Amino acid sequence: HAFYSTNSNPSKPNVILMLMDDMGWGDLGVLGNPAKETPNLDRMASEGALMTDFYAPNPLCSPSRASLLTGRLPIRNGFYTTNDHARCSYTPQYIVGGIPDSEIVLPELLNKAGYRSKIIGKWHLGHQTQYHPLKHGFDEYFGAPNCHVGPYDNKKQPNIPVYRDADMIGRYYEEFKIDKSGESNLTQMFIEEAIAFIEKQHQTGEQFFLYWTPDASHSPHYASKSFLGTSQRELYGDAVMELDYGVGQILGKLKELQIENNTFVFFSSDNGAALSGGAYVGSNGPFLCGKHTTFEGGMREPSIAWWPGRIKPGKIVHELGSLMDLFATAVDIAGMKLPADRVYDGSSLLPVLVDDKMNKNKTIFYYRGNELMAARRGMYKAHFWTWSEGIPTLHLEYCPGMQVEDVTTRNLTNHMAQPVLFHLGRDPGEKFKLKLNTAEYKKGLQFIMEAVIEHKKTMIPGQPQLNMCDKGIMNWAPSGCETLNKCLHGPPSNPFKCSWPV
Amino acid sequence: HAFYSTNSNPSKPNVILMLMDDMGWGDLGVLGNPAKETPNLDRMASEGALMTDFYAPNPLCSPSRASLLTGRLPIRNGFYTTNDHARCSYTPQYIVGGIPDSEIVLPELLNKAGYRSKIIGKWHLGHQTQYHPLKHGFDEYFGAPNCHVGPYDNKKQPNIPVYRDADMIGRYYEEFKIDKSGESNLTQMFIEEAIAFIEKQHQTGEQFFLYWTPDASHSPHYASKSFLGTSQRELYGDAVMELDYGVGQILGKLKELQIENNTFVFFSSDNGAALSGGAYVGSNGPFLCGKHTTFEGGMREPSIAWWPGRIKPGKIVHELGSLMDLFATAVDIAGMKLPADRVYDGSSLLPVLVDDKMNKNKTIFYYRGNELMAARRGMYKAHFWTWSEGIPTLHLEYCPGMQVEDVTTRNLTNHMAQPVLFHLGRDPGEKFKLKLNTAEYKKGLQFIMEAVIEHKKTMIPGQPQLNMCDKGIMNWAPSGCETLNKCLHGPPSNPFKCSWPV
Ligand SMILES: [Ca+2]
Ligand SMILES: [Ca+2]
Repeated sequence: HAFYSTNSNPSKPNVILMLMDDMGWGDLGVLGNPAKETPNLDRMASEGALMTDFYAPNPLCSPSRASLLTGRLPIRNGFYTTNDHARCSYTPQYIVGGIPDSEIVLPELLNKAGYRSKIIGKWHLGHQTQYHPLKHGFDEYFGAPNCHVGPYDNKKQPNIPVYRDADMIGRYYEEFKIDKSGESNLTQMFIEEAIAFIEKQHQTGEQFFLYWTPDASHSPHYASKSFLGTSQRELYGDAVMELDYGVGQILGKLKELQIENNTFVFFSSDNGAALSGGAYVGSNGPFLCGKHTTFEGGMREPSIAWWPGRIKPGKIVHELGSLMDLFATAVDIAGMKLPADRVYDGSSLLPVLVDDKMNKNKTIFYYRGNELMAARRGMYKAHFWTWSEGIPTLHLEYCPGMQVEDVTTRNLTNHMAQPVLFHLGRDPGEKFKLKLNTAEYKKGLQFIMEAVIEHKKTMIPGQPQLNMCDKGIMNWAPSGCETLNKCLHGPPSNPFKCSWPV
Repeated sequence: HAFYSTNSNPSKPNVILMLMDDMGWGDLGVLGNPAKETPNLDRMASEGALMTDFYAPNPLCSPSRASLLTGRLPIRNGFYTTNDHARCSYTPQYIVGGIPDSEIVLPELLNKAGYRSKIIGKWHLGHQTQYHPLKHGFDEYFGAPNCHVGPYDNKKQPNIPVYRDADMIGRYYEEFKIDKSGESNLTQMFIEEAIAFIEKQHQTGEQFFLYWTPDASHSPHYASKSFLGTSQRELYGDAVMELDYGVGQILGKLKELQIENNTFVFFSSDNGAALSGGAYVGSNGPFLCGKHTTFEGGMREPSIAWWPGRIKPGKIVHELGSLMDLFATAVDIAGMKLPADRVYDGSSLLPVLVDDKMNKNKTIFYYRGNELMAARRGMYKAHFWTWSEGIPTLHLEYCPGMQVEDVTTRNLTNHMAQPVLFHLGRDPGEKFKLKLNTAEYKKGLQFIMEAVIEHKKTMIPGQPQLNMCDKGIMNWAPSGCETLNKCLHGPPSNPFKCSWPV
């Protein structure tokens, strides 16, 4: 398309994917957060394209990230469980599984096109040796395999290691401090690492793929001292402001080095804001519920594409999109084709971003675990199953203050006989079900079902990777622990079936 | 302040107040509407100042408008009822009352400073002869005294008249068509009237005050043919798009005439989006409930100040503000002082808009009828009374899909002993009550109560204007009906106590 015909640059465009953790659609000023505390992201949107209808492939961290990096739904790449019906699963440090060798991870492909790839931040595709990012295409690594939860006692459970490339260089709450007050310099480190990598690549002239995934917006939230207390929104807002600052620093560096016209940058989040922390959490704006759920609040993401000179400034894109499209987009940018030996669930965004060619037939599939919960096509969304809360006794509220009859059902509820249909244009908050048997209901449902039937017909689920757990394989003795004298001793291996209560 | 010292223009700045009807905070793209269909308003915000924490003085049309034009709360200017406790009231065409002669309406003051004033659109401060806008300071009038509801049969109830200056020139649904499909050219007429008035004033060189109040976003929504079906959001969205287009036309005309640096423009709405129409209504974004209620969704308004050369482009203003501040602001712009013979509830916005001097001590008082329901100061809001629905049997949902225990109470509930407190920074949606007896609760409540006690101490309620109704005084025979041969005959006068079920 037009993009290539005008590309006279000999080196291929760089790709930067900025993936936030649990940040909600409504956390950005440009997407209506009343605090309006994201000036850098707002500017990024005004210089690039704001994608209003862009989705995570799953409402939870690991499966969403696995899908981004493989271009395939969790049900295909194995980031799901069959231990229970329609349960999301992820990769805590006692998970046995991770990204299968059979999956093609994005940097593996990009390496073939001459890219050097770095991941900075949270990996979350498995922490055992065979799942290490450097074994799946990344050339450089600064970050951790799991969430920064803790501190742990290093007896029952070890603190999460932080890696530089192949080896660990410390642990969270130890060498990499996170204070109880929420103070931590981690976001600054992730920013500095990104800047240094970009500068180094600019000097060598080698095209690069940077996967920047800081996790300060995932509970427990943190921010560095100069950001603490600066937000209207307490610590969560401070964290968002620092991440926003980081985005500004990175885009500013690209401009300073004058490589902004040769760098595709995409900003998004891995799932909707987690709402179970009361008032101290992110915002999903006008959308229903949050993380864990297949309502819009669980999977619609704040998303901005930025590529000066290629993407028209201030563009608003309503085409449906998914993090999985970024895989195909990066492959497209690298001038490659998607491998033909497997099914891909995304497609390149360049036609709509660069050439304004909107595809109105795209479908979004909302899964929890092994179940297709909902699907969206055009403005219509059908819920086949609804679920809003795992274990009421844990007081985990995924839809606080929200209640839609027959929709925010605490228990998993089957609507297959008569799917619940919403028109997301006039009703983005999923509050007003279309009346059954109306012409609009029938037409909307048929439009969706055409795609769903085709999808199910060709669906061959992958081997589930998230069924088995084992406390013996936690991050006791990661590579490099000997040098640091930080090897710990865990219990003997004792695999058990993981349970995913929520 | 600095503003005056730099003003070397001999003619005083023009003032344009654009007041929408029932448009919600979340209807603007720049405030996070997913459809992002307000490019002109979004540009207005990027060229001017977006006020994120700006309020209507009341969650209903008439009292809100009376307060804007008098600078005083409804409880002072008489736009309330004592027929029932804590009930909002307005001005249907069988209302006896209206704006009292004792109130000083904004154009009356501005006329003294040499301004020519015009109202275009909905007046809503009384339809009887003595309440006509030309008797309260306006020099010109194109619009109607009431909402455009109908059509009526002209027997039990007459259609609402449309005036040009002193005389009626037709009626809604007759000469001024509103089709059942929602098609109507009214917004285009209101735009053309505004453009013509601005051009005329520019030619004469006489400073002007334009009060532009189109009502297409009030049910029944309407849009002209070229806008019908163009929105993601059905007819309501079409109406908003046309209003947005009108804003663009007016600002464009100011630029074309090169008077933009000498014209203060403010855009806002008279109350929150009315949510009782199911999916076919406006959006209050992340806020709780809507029109009629004293939750944020009922009274927080989409608000933009625009004054090229004076207000820094792209400014975000978090200072609390109210439509009543626009009275004081206009008086300030005209170089006058507020009359000293009465209490004013607003203050000039120029210090914060032009000189960046933020007042952190302002208080917002949320009334329904004769009752102070809530108050906000800083980030804290206290609810003294809660109420979310008038008559359940009417199926009027003011908080559809929302439910907060002890807060969205269907019945009027007294919390005076222990007010419900929210922190609107971390919890703009009013979902998480502060725990009683915590240090934060005590401190926040005290900060609010200081202002509330002072407010109540000096409060002398005005004579309630909205207690009596009479079907004999409806718009049967407005001035000018003889010329048009459109006088109707109503029943004899028979005053009765109005009832305000919702
Ligand atoms: Ca996450
Ligand atoms: Ca109104």
